[in-house]
Amino acid sequence: MSAPLVLTLSCADRPGITARVTSFLFERGGNILEAQQFNDRSSDAFFMRVELDPGDTPRETIRAEFATLAGELEMDWKLALRDRPRRVLIMVSRFDHCLADLLYRWRIGEMPMEPIAIVSNHPREAIGHTHLGDIPFHHLPITGETKREQEARVRSIADECGAELVVLARYMQILSDEQAAHFAGRCINIHHSFLPGFKGAKPYHQAYERGVKMIGASAHYVTTDLDEGPIIHQDVESIGHADTPDELVRKGRDIESRVLAEAVRLHLEERVLLNGQRTVVFKG
Amino acid sequence: MSAPLVLTLSCADRPGITARVTSFLFERGGNILEAQQFNDRSSDAFFMRVELDPGDTPRETIRAEFATLAGELEMDWKLALRDRPRRVLIMVSRFDHCLADLLYRWRIGEMPMEPIAIVSNHPREAIGHTHLGDIPFHHLPITGETKREQEARVRSIADECGAELVVLARYMQILSDEQAAHFAGRCINIHHSFLPGFKGAKPYHQAYERGVKMIGASAHYVTTDLDEGPIIHQDVESIGHADTPDELVRKGRDIESRVLAEAVRLHLEERVLLNGQRTVVFKG
Amino acid sequence: MSAPLVLTLSCADRPGITARVTSFLFERGGNILEAQQFNDRSSDAFFMRVELDPGDTPRETIRAEFATLAGELEMDWKLALRDRPRRVLIMVSRFDHCLADLLYRWRIGEMPMEPIAIVSNHPREAIGHTHLGDIPFHHLPITGETKREQEARVRSIADECGAELVVLARYMQILSDEQAAHFAGRCINIHHSFLPGFKGAKPYHQAYERGVKMIGASAHYVTTDLDEGPIIHQDVESIGHADTPDELVRKGRDIESRVLAEAVRLHLEERVLLNGQRTVVFKG
Amino acid sequence: MSAPLVLTLSCADRPGITARVTSFLFERGGNILEAQQFNDRSSDAFFMRVELDPGDTPRETIRAEFATLAGELEMDWKLALRDRPRRVLIMVSRFDHCLADLLYRWRIGEMPMEPIAIVSNHPREAIGHTHLGDIPFHHLPITGETKREQEARVRSIADECGAELVVLARYMQILSDEQAAHFAGRCINIHHSFLPGFKGAKPYHQAYERGVKMIGASAHYVTTDLDEGPIIHQDVESIGHADTPDELVRKGRDIESRVLAEAVRLHLEERVLLNGQRTVVFKG
Repeated sequence: MSAPLVLTLSCADRPGITARVTSFLFERGGNILEAQQFNDRSSDAFFMRVELDPGDTPRETIRAEFATLAGELEMDWKLALRDRPRRVLIMVSRFDHCLADLLYRWRIGEMPMEPIAIVSNHPREAIGHTHLGDIPFHHLPITGETKREQEARVRSIADECGAELVVLARYMQILSDEQAAHFAGRCINIHHSFLPGFKGAKPYHQAYERGVKMIGASAHYVTTDLDEGPIIHQDVESIGHADTPDELVRKGRDIESRVLAEAVRLHLEERVLLNGQRTVVFKG
Repeated sequence: MSAPLVLTLSCADRPGITARVTSFLFERGGNILEAQQFNDRSSDAFFMRVELDPGDTPRETIRAEFATLAGELEMDWKLALRDRPRRVLIMVSRFDHCLADLLYRWRIGEMPMEPIAIVSNHPREAIGHTHLGDIPFHHLPITGETKREQEARVRSIADECGAELVVLARYMQILSDEQAAHFAGRCINIHHSFLPGFKGAKPYHQAYERGVKMIGASAHYVTTDLDEGPIIHQDVESIGHADTPDELVRKGRDIESRVLAEAVRLHLEERVLLNGQRTVVFKG
Repeated sequence: MSAPLVLTLSCADRPGITARVTSFLFERGGNILEAQQFNDRSSDAFFMRVELDPGDTPRETIRAEFATLAGELEMDWKLALRDRPRRVLIMVSRFDHCLADLLYRWRIGEMPMEPIAIVSNHPREAIGHTHLGDIPFHHLPITGETKREQEARVRSIADECGAELVVLARYMQILSDEQAAHFAGRCINIHHSFLPGFKGAKPYHQAYERGVKMIGASAHYVTTDLDEGPIIHQDVESIGHADTPDELVRKGRDIESRVLAEAVRLHLEERVLLNGQRTVVFKG
Repeated sequence: MSAPLVLTLSCADRPGITARVTSFLFERGGNILEAQQFNDRSSDAFFMRVELDPGDTPRETIRAEFATLAGELEMDWKLALRDRPRRVLIMVSRFDHCLADLLYRWRIGEMPMEPIAIVSNHPREAIGHTHLGDIPFHHLPITGETKREQEARVRSIADECGAELVVLARYMQILSDEQAAHFAGRCINIHHSFLPGFKGAKPYHQAYERGVKMIGASAHYVTTDLDEGPIIHQDVESIGHADTPDELVRKGRDIESRVLAEAVRLHLEERVLLNGQRTVVFKG
């Protein structure tokens, strides 16, 4: 088997897209390993994801020839190697449970990424007990005055490393509109509430005050509209009257870690497509 | 065994409350069947629920003598027969899945209530396929002009029937402040969202538009502050990108029915105590 | 739009199936509304489900012409009207929560079926509080001696009514091998445990004795191998040490009702395909 | 506040136990911070857990005087410092996700333990990417011939270190009856299935073959009866037809880690009491 590819695409819906795409692949000797599509009747949009064994046809040939079909159907599309680890830059502040979780999954081979840098607004010692191995660590403190400059530095690190994804793994800073726009569609944040409830700061304390019976976490793409980006994944857990805010924080760590890990994995496997301010998620 | 009682109480926390309450009961021949307490350290409040076999001591004797202790400790308290079905008035509009569910549970003996009236702002035919049996049905239409009058009529039906609890089983009308205040602490509403997200009208459509990955329902006591009453129970389910608003409505019906039923059961079993705008829920 | 069709198929996997099937439909003016496929690499089998608007091509034309393609690829396949309610025979004993739930869903239009008969081994009064409307009720008592005869009678009712699906909605009798074989692939049972745990009788009591912390229910196709049929859907709930067997039975009713309803809905929408002793379930 | 204590006890149920225990504590100046009880009517047994601020009374005085009451009521009981980290020995084989998870929780202060030794039947390199810090690591290989000797060595390490709990964090060896008996009530295992389903080896492969729609994990006390020990905690996740055994193993790791961590935390906080082959779990 040749190295498997993953093709993702979206376009206006019309009859025959699936037939044309799959026939295109079949005629070039491609064998479909997994395929999903979604016809969004509310917006008349079409979304598709195909994993394929390209057979003897070189990837660049497929890409070049598919461009014609894609142009005709006015597609947004991407053709990628399925199994190439994506380069990821992880940003963190003082709470490193999400970072530790992502790195553990990476080390045992379950997270298809290559962590190319870790950026924190706090020094290395703030997360001293987490083993970073050879991953470069950048301490980039931030203040109101230095924000512009710090963000430029983050962009330059990301560019130098060829970061394909930026993960805000409990990075407790709000990105500027400029920064959010720069990383649009390739920056995932974990918000420690079940959005749209409890936006803003200290969501577990808000949840405690309100007396809700479940807490949650939401992984979403970062947009200029804070806490309003397209949601990729969410989960919740039941809580009770005896749970103090500290207990909520403890329980929340588990939810945050697994929700962020799932969202990152889905993104890295090219399973998330943007659909306006919503997402199409093709689970396996 | 004598008819079991249930004692619920709350007061300022201080050393010795449990000892005094349980000694009081023991000295009168009472045998505890189930007991729970909660010391709320954030508010220094104490909550307790005891199910007991009172032995040979008449309930009224226990009540009279407990009043002294309760007075001394400045308790809010209640002593009730555990197994007496509570009289419940159910209000509904056009969607009767919650009503049908409550009535089924009542008929097979799992909901400890006596439905004493059903009130709707729509005629009987609106929920024609639901079997009401002998339960009186009141059609009380409502408009902006007649709201005051209609609500007075609801109060008078509730009073005449001795309603102990009013359940808004998808009753699609907002109670006036006066009405909410009248039924304070004994009126449960089911909101078809995971509060505090998606307050207000058409929550499933709001959820669809926002692109959340879970939908939920919240059962709460009605207060003058719409959608802000103390929450008794909540639950959620995962949804996907292919779920249309209609699908959300369908999935939501299941969540609403079971969340409301659980909240009503907890209330009827005297398991819910108010703690400011939150609740203490002593599950079995 | 013409009446939508649903096409389901399975066959040995090979390159080009999706292309051939979707091209076939496109060439006849069909428009895909929803499509899913599954390439089972463990068995080299291919499964597909397509909802389509057939455009101007008559269904019988599509059927006749597809037969050629299907024959060539040695497919098991089915082409059906998507929205035609399927004829369902429901069997029940003394506990009717699943029956009541299915009928309520049917009445409000969320379950795409036409209940054509209800068969019970107990008299109508056993489920007296459930409203059956015009659905014929057949009391077919059963004993060791009459089992053969009773089952023949069930088959003859099913045949006369053209039952497409038989639902064992807590029908507390074991079907004979002959009966199970007769209804193979079109008879769904709800088992009140999280299979494969607690097969056999009184699963909630078994669960209590074992001290598990969750209980569940499993909907599966009936086979001659009792409790071993292909599972369609399962769900669970947490329980605690204070839950008596009676509490488990109460909590279990909710799980059973919703698991069976979901399995029946999935089957009626032609979303369940058999894959040996497992199922492929194409959720929406 | 003095150092809080935790009192756990069980005995035959009879009237007045709660009154006597709480009065005993009150009379000695103790203030209850949290209290739970369970009257098991199926076995007429009583279970209680109390967290208390002992005030000015020395712990040893409370212990000595409580012994009299405990003797009279024939209690099994324990009085411990609530906040003293318990000494824990962790055993592991080649899969270290549970170990890594427990150690991370310990490092950030959420797991009230002191890991005093890690024992593996594989060399240190087998879990090379997990940071053990100063925790002694013992490589104790095991074969059929050396099992007796290896287990004796484990016992001697546990004794030397004063291990209060032994956690089998995916230790892929079956303890001998002698070993299981030695650590009775203080050895927790994580089984990677939703017991009692899929006992024995390769549960995820069993689950795949059977075609279940959920997988789970169970944390239980180890007994001489393999996979039959009292269950402390269980959880599950939904799976689909596209999940290969490898996917189940990946999803299972998350469930195993969080189920074991919760069970260990509950045990360390003295929240788990044995009730025959079941457990009473007093959650917070």
